[in-house]
Amino acid sequence: MKTEILTLLRETDGYVSGQELCEKFGVSRTAVWKAINQLKEAGYEIEAVQNKGYRLVSVPDILSESELQSVRKTRWIGEKIAFFDVVDSTNTRAKQLAEEGAPNGTYVIAERQDAGKGRRGRGFDSPAGQGIWMTLVLKPEIDPNHASMITLVTALAVSKAITDMTGRPAGIKWPNDIIMSGKKVCGILTEMSAQFDYVNHIVVGIGVNVQNKSFPKDIESVATSLFIETKEHYHRAELVERIWEAFEHYYEIFLQTEDLSGLVNEYNSHLVNMHQQVKVLDPKEPFEGKAMGITPKGELIVDTWESRKLVSTGEVSVRGIYGYV
Amino acid sequence: MKTEILTLLRETDGYVSGQELCEKFGVSRTAVWKAINQLKEAGYEIEAVQNKGYRLVSVPDILSESELQSVRKTRWIGEKIAFFDVVDSTNTRAKQLAEEGAPNGTYVIAERQDAGKGRRGRGFDSPAGQGIWMTLVLKPEIDPNHASMITLVTALAVSKAITDMTGRPAGIKWPNDIIMSGKKVCGILTEMSAQFDYVNHIVVGIGVNVQNKSFPKDIESVATSLFIETKEHYHRAELVERIWEAFEHYYEIFLQTEDLSGLVNEYNSHLVNMHQQVKVLDPKEPFEGKAMGITPKGELIVDTWESRKLVSTGEVSVRGIYGYV
Repeated sequence: MKTEILTLLRETDGYVSGQELCEKFGVSRTAVWKAINQLKEAGYEIEAVQNKGYRLVSVPDILSESELQSVRKTRWIGEKIAFFDVVDSTNTRAKQLAEEGAPNGTYVIAERQDAGKGRRGRGFDSPAGQGIWMTLVLKPEIDPNHASMITLVTALAVSKAITDMTGRPAGIKWPNDIIMSGKKVCGILTEMSAQFDYVNHIVVGIGVNVQNKSFPKDIESVATSLFIETKEHYHRAELVERIWEAFEHYYEIFLQTEDLSGLVNEYNSHLVNMHQQVKVLDPKEPFEGKAMGITPKGELIVDTWESRKLVSTGEVSVRGIYGYV
Repeated sequence: MKTEILTLLRETDGYVSGQELCEKFGVSRTAVWKAINQLKEAGYEIEAVQNKGYRLVSVPDILSESELQSVRKTRWIGEKIAFFDVVDSTNTRAKQLAEEGAPNGTYVIAERQDAGKGRRGRGFDSPAGQGIWMTLVLKPEIDPNHASMITLVTALAVSKAITDMTGRPAGIKWPNDIIMSGKKVCGILTEMSAQFDYVNHIVVGIGVNVQNKSFPKDIESVATSLFIETKEHYHRAELVERIWEAFEHYYEIFLQTEDLSGLVNEYNSHLVNMHQQVKVLDPKEPFEGKAMGITPKGELIVDTWESRKLVSTGEVSVRGIYGYV
């Protein structure tokens, strides 16, 4: 009920009468009044004018299921949303839900993670209310060997969503870090459970720093937030929705060919490494060269003086020679 | 205590005096007597002769932790054993334990699975007391792309263990079915949880039909058991131990090079497809040829009239042209 009323208030420019709400949802005036009060308690500013009805004046920056459902525009992502005030890690929780049968497109989101996960077992800082900490469950019928490309699809979606929302470039550092002014604003952690020829499920974890005003000493030189970059407070639920809309779009293009052939150009246009000198930290033989974009399989093309090399995700890390990127 | 006493009784040819047990384990006569009684209740036949002590006459065919620990010869597999009378699926349980931090080498084993898992979400029949239903947790530092080879390592270990124990050939149908007289006696289900360059954990599920006298109609033409093949009842805990001993041996060879180069010859010597005509059910273009063994990466080499082809696990299935194998 709360969600439906909120959605209607959002969609309406002026006032919605109590009568209209009662009829639309087939409930009593008291029920409407209760739901409106619950919304107010959650932080929504709702004006009530006699003979006119209710009007949504402002929305709080919260990530409740009602808030997220009322801004939802995607077709299959977020049919089920599992919201938590606190979780250990949204990836861990998403994996549990996936094992228990959660459908493709379910996502887990939390105001705070107390054991957020970074790559290779490292931690990920996720303070309450400051960012977007969420993980999507996917159950595609694809070759497990193609799954790592979903990380690049995700990077493209986040890059696009942040760039569109803020009007400021949020580029991709290959394969999947999102960068503003040379610092990381978003991390992506894709994990897969698979048999050798069959994907059980994939979880795509996305952590975006949104409202953070500062960072702990050990990461402040490499981390940034949308607020630090723009001095504006963006509404997180809206950014969540923009990310999933973009993801749905790009992911469906990916599924058509099970590779990135339909996304190479767009990915490259967001790639901060493009035409830059990079150092490829191959444990056997590090080398330098110029990054020339990605292949349809998601490899980074690096031209050295002698030859063209293809760098696979996972094999090595790549570092820009000038600055962090 | 029960486990320690059982181990000592097993290792001793004649009698072990009560006095010796008390001293060895630093406990009272009453404690020893209690433990002996528990073992008797579990089905162990233990003779007690005055002035001589205790002697193990026979052991029941059970898979309790005490039983398994008392026959254990492996170095790191089975330091922790999680035994259940019934589980949904040993793979599912092993994945949960792995997520919760269970160490490398832990295994889950059950007398019965009520939702046993086969490949690609299919079921796996696992009636109480009839077979070995178990899953090993591995946490190797390897490239996730190399993990599928562990399925072939497992097939080799099971093939060797059954062949040694029964004196009857238990061959491998590439990549990982174990076959006696043309029928399947064991299934292997390997599942992995991974980031794109990092293995969280791998679980190796092994289901061996041991005591089964018959099978349900829908699988009786393709399934067999050790009892059906040999008319003998093998002791399951002993076979478990033989499988893990063989696995430990072959797996360590695999880890040295992260491929099967050290195991190709032995694998091929167990391969029932070797030098046989096979049909490769490639969805794009099925073809026939002669199987010539595996490559160091675990691919099946198939010679057609025109050329040599390498078939990867996962891409296709392979069927013998004559009979099931």
